[in-house]
Amino acid sequence: MIKANDPHLHSWIQISPTSEFPIQNLPFGIFSTNHQDSRVGVAIGDYILDLCAVAQEGLFDLLDIDPTVFNRPYLNDFISLGKPAWRAVRDRISELLRTDNDEIRDNDQIMHRCLIKQVNATLHLPVKISNYTDFYTSLEHATNVGLLFRDPENPLSPNWKHLPVGYHGRASSIVVSGKDIHRPKGQVKFNDSPLPTFMPTQQLDFELEFAFITGTNTALGTTISTAEAENHIFGVVLFNDWSARDIQRWEYVPLGPFLGKNFASSVSPWVVTLDALEPFRVPGPPQNPAVLPYLEYTGNKHLDIHLKVYLQPAHHNSTLISETNTRHLYWNMNQQLAHQTSNGCNMEVGDLYASGTISGTEPGSYGSLLELSWNGSKPILLEDGITRTFLEDGDSIIFKGCAERNGVRIGFGEIRTKILPAI
Amino acid sequence: MIKANDPHLHSWIQISPTSEFPIQNLPFGIFSTNHQDSRVGVAIGDYILDLCAVAQEGLFDLLDIDPTVFNRPYLNDFISLGKPAWRAVRDRISELLRTDNDEIRDNDQIMHRCLIKQVNATLHLPVKISNYTDFYTSLEHATNVGLLFRDPENPLSPNWKHLPVGYHGRASSIVVSGKDIHRPKGQVKFNDSPLPTFMPTQQLDFELEFAFITGTNTALGTTISTAEAENHIFGVVLFNDWSARDIQRWEYVPLGPFLGKNFASSVSPWVVTLDALEPFRVPGPPQNPAVLPYLEYTGNKHLDIHLKVYLQPAHHNSTLISETNTRHLYWNMNQQLAHQTSNGCNMEVGDLYASGTISGTEPGSYGSLLELSWNGSKPILLEDGITRTFLEDGDSIIFKGCAERNGVRIGFGEIRTKILPAI
Repeated sequence: MIKANDPHLHSWIQISPTSEFPIQNLPFGIFSTNHQDSRVGVAIGDYILDLCAVAQEGLFDLLDIDPTVFNRPYLNDFISLGKPAWRAVRDRISELLRTDNDEIRDNDQIMHRCLIKQVNATLHLPVKISNYTDFYTSLEHATNVGLLFRDPENPLSPNWKHLPVGYHGRASSIVVSGKDIHRPKGQVKFNDSPLPTFMPTQQLDFELEFAFITGTNTALGTTISTAEAENHIFGVVLFNDWSARDIQRWEYVPLGPFLGKNFASSVSPWVVTLDALEPFRVPGPPQNPAVLPYLEYTGNKHLDIHLKVYLQPAHHNSTLISETNTRHLYWNMNQQLAHQTSNGCNMEVGDLYASGTISGTEPGSYGSLLELSWNGSKPILLEDGITRTFLEDGDSIIFKGCAERNGVRIGFGEIRTKILPAI
Repeated sequence: MIKANDPHLHSWIQISPTSEFPIQNLPFGIFSTNHQDSRVGVAIGDYILDLCAVAQEGLFDLLDIDPTVFNRPYLNDFISLGKPAWRAVRDRISELLRTDNDEIRDNDQIMHRCLIKQVNATLHLPVKISNYTDFYTSLEHATNVGLLFRDPENPLSPNWKHLPVGYHGRASSIVVSGKDIHRPKGQVKFNDSPLPTFMPTQQLDFELEFAFITGTNTALGTTISTAEAENHIFGVVLFNDWSARDIQRWEYVPLGPFLGKNFASSVSPWVVTLDALEPFRVPGPPQNPAVLPYLEYTGNKHLDIHLKVYLQPAHHNSTLISETNTRHLYWNMNQQLAHQTSNGCNMEVGDLYASGTISGTEPGSYGSLLELSWNGSKPILLEDGITRTFLEDGDSIIFKGCAERNGVRIGFGEIRTKILPAI
């Protein structure tokens, strides 16, 4: 059987070679139209394949799957069917969309019902997020933050190379691309004042991250090894963990980030499966000192995904302000999940585990304005002579991510978010 | 109309004067029996009133409420109906159970169907927890921790009296009383070793807390004032935020507690409404320096609830090891919710907001073994000559909480949890 990620596969749907959604991708998401409520779809070229309609047309009948899981406002019920079901559905969709398959191609009525132009659809948050963990897995980012705020001689905390440092974030405020966010207010403490002030943040920032979504419920007290981890991962998304640096700086001692983060985080609309990303596995960086046995792993567990950040001020063009790659991350997803569950903490369907800010080694590869502007000391230059240290009202931040090899491009759909004034 | 918390009310059900569940309480929970799946019930004396059965018997017909919300494994769907519905149901239950009401009392068939002995029921986690925040609102606890680990001259962090310090916890691992928990493993770093060791925690501890559960979904970008807060609070529970001090100490810099906490937290089975606790409102401690305007409040927003902690080693009697009161907390629930939403963070039905460890001023009133044994330096003495610094396998921790006035006792059901060996 031809694998669904084979670079030689082609679809009977016309797909531009620059599309993020060739037949090798087939990412899952939630969409609605003027005529239809939210439901599960798969991106293919400029279209969405409506899985609810596909199921109702009987085209999934040979799979042993409850067809109603596609008629839901979140992916969770589909995800909870488990990895064999994710694969069976993906393989069947791949088959239906291949050049040589006529089941949809040659039936105008079914095609009309099952294929929706993306421009006619609204994309929604794909997953009801159950629990959200934010890790801190980029050595370059942790080092930059340490250089800025900790100790230039000793920027990493002593635990950093022994465990993937992480903390719990707020699941309720995770939104999808296209949802604009208001500048948050909060307590800010200026050095020259004895008392804090309640005011709109003056240091609003993005964080360029990558996240995976889990697809199983595990029992409290059980663990997941690095070798088993991928059986529990449904797919991956781009992630923007918005941050208010001034609010965070005053509040975060001693229990960590809170209101400086939980006003919003943004995800890409399409969840890309690990199967689609299989050809893009790469080795990770060497880990020295050696990690403890429960964090050891074998094989290529890092992903080669190129990431770009654009900043677009109101009424101006966008400027590319950062480029980096997920392959730089020190700790991989398998290690993150093994660590998260090493104490018996249970996972749920729809958990989101984010990488933390992804920075490369060069200034143009940093994943936050905190680093790009070096805490506001070096304004960055945009098109039209505009400069920025932190974000201003009306600015939009756009994330794009793409894996590319053998003429196949795998993307996520962008995350585009505009900053609205404080209420 | 007589209020449901009037101390002069009596029920036709025989209720011991020492019961935590008089007709003035009527806390909500989830129970099942050998014959019935999980459903909503209300504790009354030694019984549970089966609200699913009450609704099916037509006894809620005059309330404009979907009766199926009681036939669910969590309270969330009932809670999401909103405060007018919570009150209408509570008032109707109070009416049905009063001495002079014959609708259940004089109908053997209905009584048999609707009243279940608590000893014949299993209690479940009452709420599917959507998001969990743990605050740090006890001045005495924060001071003790600061004295132990921060700076004896300056134990409180500079922000502590300006905002209710808090962080996000893990919702998935919150369990109900009676669910035993395994000693977690994790990375521990000893002072005399250059490298961490992965091992079962040697400093397993409880944290005596109190928590409220919210009952509304709010929109991202909106805030809740201290004056509005109680319209969003469904009820309160006792809460044990289990902690592994050695794991926590190594991992928590710079992003806060993670695996040292998220292996489990335990809640009491019954959720007590604010209406039941109305007679137990008391003034809070003075707040000096003055808080920012968004944290100001008027009226009595603290609660007078007496709390007790017992430690019971395997095959031995239990010993009372701590007694304190929620009235000591520096920051009240209204301030916590106003702070949590001050940046526009949205709330969900079923969020749990915990107080953080509650300690009084005297050693016998501390809410953790960390404080009671002063970080292991002063073993505490139990019955039978047994001593403890931190918890050993087979130990059980029991929390009890009670508000008492005018002969009325309002309780939560205990939290009882046994420590099992590491897996």
